[in-house]
Amino acid sequence: MKDNGQPVEVGVSQQKEVKVPKHKVWLRNEFVRVGLAESLCTYVMMVFGLGSVAQVVMGEGAFGQYLSINLGFAVGVAMGVHVGGTVSGAHMNAAVSFTMCTFGRLAWRMLPVYVFAQLLGSFLAAGTIFAVYYEAIYDYSGGNLTVTGVKATAGIFATYPAPYLSLFGGFIDQVFGTAMLLLCLMALSDQKNKPAAAGSEPLAVGLLVLLIGISLGSNSGYAINPTRDIAPRVFTAIAGWGADVFRSGNGWWWVPLVAPPIGGVFGAGLYKVFVEMHHQPLPEQGGGLAVDLGDESPPLEKQNNT
Amino acid sequence: MKDNGQPVEVGVSQQKEVKVPKHKVWLRNEFVRVGLAESLCTYVMMVFGLGSVAQVVMGEGAFGQYLSINLGFAVGVAMGVHVGGTVSGAHMNAAVSFTMCTFGRLAWRMLPVYVFAQLLGSFLAAGTIFAVYYEAIYDYSGGNLTVTGVKATAGIFATYPAPYLSLFGGFIDQVFGTAMLLLCLMALSDQKNKPAAAGSEPLAVGLLVLLIGISLGSNSGYAINPTRDIAPRVFTAIAGWGADVFRSGNGWWWVPLVAPPIGGVFGAGLYKVFVEMHHQPLPEQGGGLAVDLGDESPPLEKQNNT
Amino acid sequence: MKDNGQPVEVGVSQQKEVKVPKHKVWLRNEFVRVGLAESLCTYVMMVFGLGSVAQVVMGEGAFGQYLSINLGFAVGVAMGVHVGGTVSGAHMNAAVSFTMCTFGRLAWRMLPVYVFAQLLGSFLAAGTIFAVYYEAIYDYSGGNLTVTGVKATAGIFATYPAPYLSLFGGFIDQVFGTAMLLLCLMALSDQKNKPAAAGSEPLAVGLLVLLIGISLGSNSGYAINPTRDIAPRVFTAIAGWGADVFRSGNGWWWVPLVAPPIGGVFGAGLYKVFVEMHHQPLPEQGGGLAVDLGDESPPLEKQNNT
Amino acid sequence: MKDNGQPVEVGVSQQKEVKVPKHKVWLRNEFVRVGLAESLCTYVMMVFGLGSVAQVVMGEGAFGQYLSINLGFAVGVAMGVHVGGTVSGAHMNAAVSFTMCTFGRLAWRMLPVYVFAQLLGSFLAAGTIFAVYYEAIYDYSGGNLTVTGVKATAGIFATYPAPYLSLFGGFIDQVFGTAMLLLCLMALSDQKNKPAAAGSEPLAVGLLVLLIGISLGSNSGYAINPTRDIAPRVFTAIAGWGADVFRSGNGWWWVPLVAPPIGGVFGAGLYKVFVEMHHQPLPEQGGGLAVDLGDESPPLEKQNNT
Repeated sequence: MKDNGQPVEVGVSQQKEVKVPKHKVWLRNEFVRVGLAESLCTYVMMVFGLGSVAQVVMGEGAFGQYLSINLGFAVGVAMGVHVGGTVSGAHMNAAVSFTMCTFGRLAWRMLPVYVFAQLLGSFLAAGTIFAVYYEAIYDYSGGNLTVTGVKATAGIFATYPAPYLSLFGGFIDQVFGTAMLLLCLMALSDQKNKPAAAGSEPLAVGLLVLLIGISLGSNSGYAINPTRDIAPRVFTAIAGWGADVFRSGNGWWWVPLVAPPIGGVFGAGLYKVFVEMHHQPLPEQGGGLAVDLGDESPPLEKQNNT
Repeated sequence: MKDNGQPVEVGVSQQKEVKVPKHKVWLRNEFVRVGLAESLCTYVMMVFGLGSVAQVVMGEGAFGQYLSINLGFAVGVAMGVHVGGTVSGAHMNAAVSFTMCTFGRLAWRMLPVYVFAQLLGSFLAAGTIFAVYYEAIYDYSGGNLTVTGVKATAGIFATYPAPYLSLFGGFIDQVFGTAMLLLCLMALSDQKNKPAAAGSEPLAVGLLVLLIGISLGSNSGYAINPTRDIAPRVFTAIAGWGADVFRSGNGWWWVPLVAPPIGGVFGAGLYKVFVEMHHQPLPEQGGGLAVDLGDESPPLEKQNNT
Repeated sequence: MKDNGQPVEVGVSQQKEVKVPKHKVWLRNEFVRVGLAESLCTYVMMVFGLGSVAQVVMGEGAFGQYLSINLGFAVGVAMGVHVGGTVSGAHMNAAVSFTMCTFGRLAWRMLPVYVFAQLLGSFLAAGTIFAVYYEAIYDYSGGNLTVTGVKATAGIFATYPAPYLSLFGGFIDQVFGTAMLLLCLMALSDQKNKPAAAGSEPLAVGLLVLLIGISLGSNSGYAINPTRDIAPRVFTAIAGWGADVFRSGNGWWWVPLVAPPIGGVFGAGLYKVFVEMHHQPLPEQGGGLAVDLGDESPPLEKQNNT
Repeated sequence: MKDNGQPVEVGVSQQKEVKVPKHKVWLRNEFVRVGLAESLCTYVMMVFGLGSVAQVVMGEGAFGQYLSINLGFAVGVAMGVHVGGTVSGAHMNAAVSFTMCTFGRLAWRMLPVYVFAQLLGSFLAAGTIFAVYYEAIYDYSGGNLTVTGVKATAGIFATYPAPYLSLFGGFIDQVFGTAMLLLCLMALSDQKNKPAAAGSEPLAVGLLVLLIGISLGSNSGYAINPTRDIAPRVFTAIAGWGADVFRSGNGWWWVPLVAPPIGGVFGAGLYKVFVEMHHQPLPEQGGGLAVDLGDESPPLEKQNNT
């Protein structure tokens, strides 16, 4: 960090603003630059994720099983991290962006840019998968686009809870799944502990998402992401599945919106309290007290990878 | 790049031609050198890919499922990248070569060498898998080599569309699948963003191919590659499956030839427009305007890995 | 090692104690620091591991198969290594801690801290998974929490032997499984051989756990870990499954407590005798006799990763 | 290589012998050192590999499927490479050792040491798996140890051909499978091309073995390794399966002995002819003719990893 002098922070870096005159044109350009990257990486993740669900749902065993969906979202997230990369940080998840803002790793004024870009990418991905699998969906469902039933296809796009799950149980499920996501993301980016090796961050984040799908997915499909869930849900409401996508599961739709940001802050805080707060100062910095230097390190990627 | 002075470009590098006298003998040798490597890596990828399909089709569940095919092509591509490596760049796919030419990363005069080498490797791989699984194929099919039906074996070698798929739908499917391939390949090789770590490119490209198979494969078997598809198809036409390999699927055979190059250019362009165009100049290069420096970096491999 | 001068040992390092005055407050803080990290990483591993079993047991094929459990514990361990990291070394397993103490890589006085922290993390993880899957468990079992039978759910939390397995056979199974774990862990951390690459230790340890599950798991569920097994077993005894969790399998519960520490020391010793003892001194250290320098290198992580 | 001056060659390095006086005691010690490491790594690979087959064969779907076996041998090989590492090079396969001798990367006088060590490790692993799964085997087979039939268990230990396979077809299968193994191993260790990244060799070799199992395993179980196959076969002949293990499959047992060394040399030669022979000299070495420098680089591992 010292020999470089210019840490590339996720989102808009304060350091850059000092160097480049902060006139509105530049700022708008920065919004556009970050927003485009965040849109594209969310699009990439969602195309691969929703595509894998489509194959499993309609293939009925011939084109993969539940593990394929876990892999689809996992490697999809990894590719998204490569695409968004150091430009936007590739959050692809409003709960991640919200947590980063809460802990001072992203400026609050960037939050709307991230959320809008994620919604846009997610919506377009839903549309793309609908187009690519249009003939498959009509062949499978007989043209009857339903949210429930044996030939239901709404689950390709948004998440729906298991029949036994109450809204309260689902809320806990979503809070906890997102807490585990952010807890581990904090560890993967903690340069004073055992972070993901430089360059392997996309794979490490992908493995984390694989893991959540394998272990915390059966209750409600592990949305753990407001922008991932709501945009395709709105798309399906428009594209022919109708208002059932909001009514189904006792009005499930708001749970993946509200619970993940709460869980994200909770999980990241847990890591801070249990581990990060207790880091000792580095040896070469003298023998002072352990202080929390965590918010100096940008999330998910190293600073010197250019 | 600067301290080295000799970037090893994929294909024939202009820099080398300046140093080495450009007489015809040398150029022919370069063609042979690159062509042999491209043939061998395509052969390796195809042997492993087709072999995995053969096991799944004829094993009927006892020797892997759809995921095995995804893994076969994915890790097969990774091994191909190791084999072709820095000699040819290991495109193994005419759509990749065509896109590289379009964006100035490969000299157009090298394109025929790449395409011919890929066709040769792919054809020989089909012949090898036919030989290795000759007894298995005759045992499974009763000696009746067919393109359709319960004991069809033509799908081991070339791709065929699902019954519900129209030629138009299949064309979109192939354009889009290849677009996602090239979009992500551009990100994996973008040194100003979050590229695949030095040395991990083969694995990263393999994961990308796994992902496309898991999420975009059920419509038509994700050829996303003209040379991968046509050479084994011609082989099967000769080896006993007959003209049905061209008639089947409403004359499907030309779709994986025509759609992927279009999709490749589209996907790579998308990445350029959304991300690469907006890269800011590196700090040490002064505060100029963001310019597209993408075509200075060779695709898929780092320059300083020797 | 030489240019650094301050190897960061797992647990409390002797070197640090020389520098920092060894008053009781500091030591208690160190206990807390290490204990919190060890608790959290064990919690993370167990939540993901038990969660993956829950999905497979209650999903009946729809949410993963046996391989998902192998992946759940494998990647769960990898994430745990990231979380505990260089603070506690992320043993997450009393057999690992015991073996490290036996071979002088961890101070014996730290053992109770590790064991207590692991028990705490493991117990809390069992409680969390019970809470998250509370409705699922009651829906699946009809509220009848049993250890045996078609709808048995105790196996989500602790391990139980196969019907054919004797206590003696199970004891051998657990000794051997843990021996293979520690044998390979020694190799993965042997800096004079071919250790896991710097930064890839979490993945390498995860692959090792995957491997043990794939090849040595069917006899008794590969506990290979006292603290992983007993804490959730006690939890289930309290939470409604009753004393059957101790009676089942002919009183199986003590085997995963006693066998793994024995196996761990045996396996690590095997590696030392077959490989580590015979390492030649490094070239720059002159041509002396081969000596065992193994206990100078900390287990599981490199020394210069900060 | 230059700044180090002491390349650590696989097996016995000529360089060392110059420095250390070549008296018989040292040489015998070197034999023991290399032999012990090669035994242990072969043992590790085989325990994990055979264990994975045992679980799949006797679990009948409940403890993994064919892919688990592919993963068991793949990650088992990776762990073996960590264990044998830079001491023996971790061939674990007489066909690999034979090919290394043929191409001058291993001294011929070391070949018997490697073969004996591999046979020993492989035999002991078969015995261990028999002991660990003794009760499982007797429960599954009713104590009737057979080579063929629905409850056959000999296939846990050695390979047997599919019913349709002729000896000639199987011979081709084993030659070709081993050729692909060595072809890719040559690429993975070719420092002038795109080798496996330093430290990731174990994973890369494991992925290669996974790939061969996924694509070239259904004909005869991909032994591609004489020492892997014959030692467990002899063990089963002694342990109760009797002479059928040699009679079965038309006297199949000699094919995995004879074919792999032929295939190994063929495959490695193919890589040399197609790629390695055409490598241009490194830029800093002046513009001479392309020469084959391949045998200067040790197989499978980097030279500067200590």
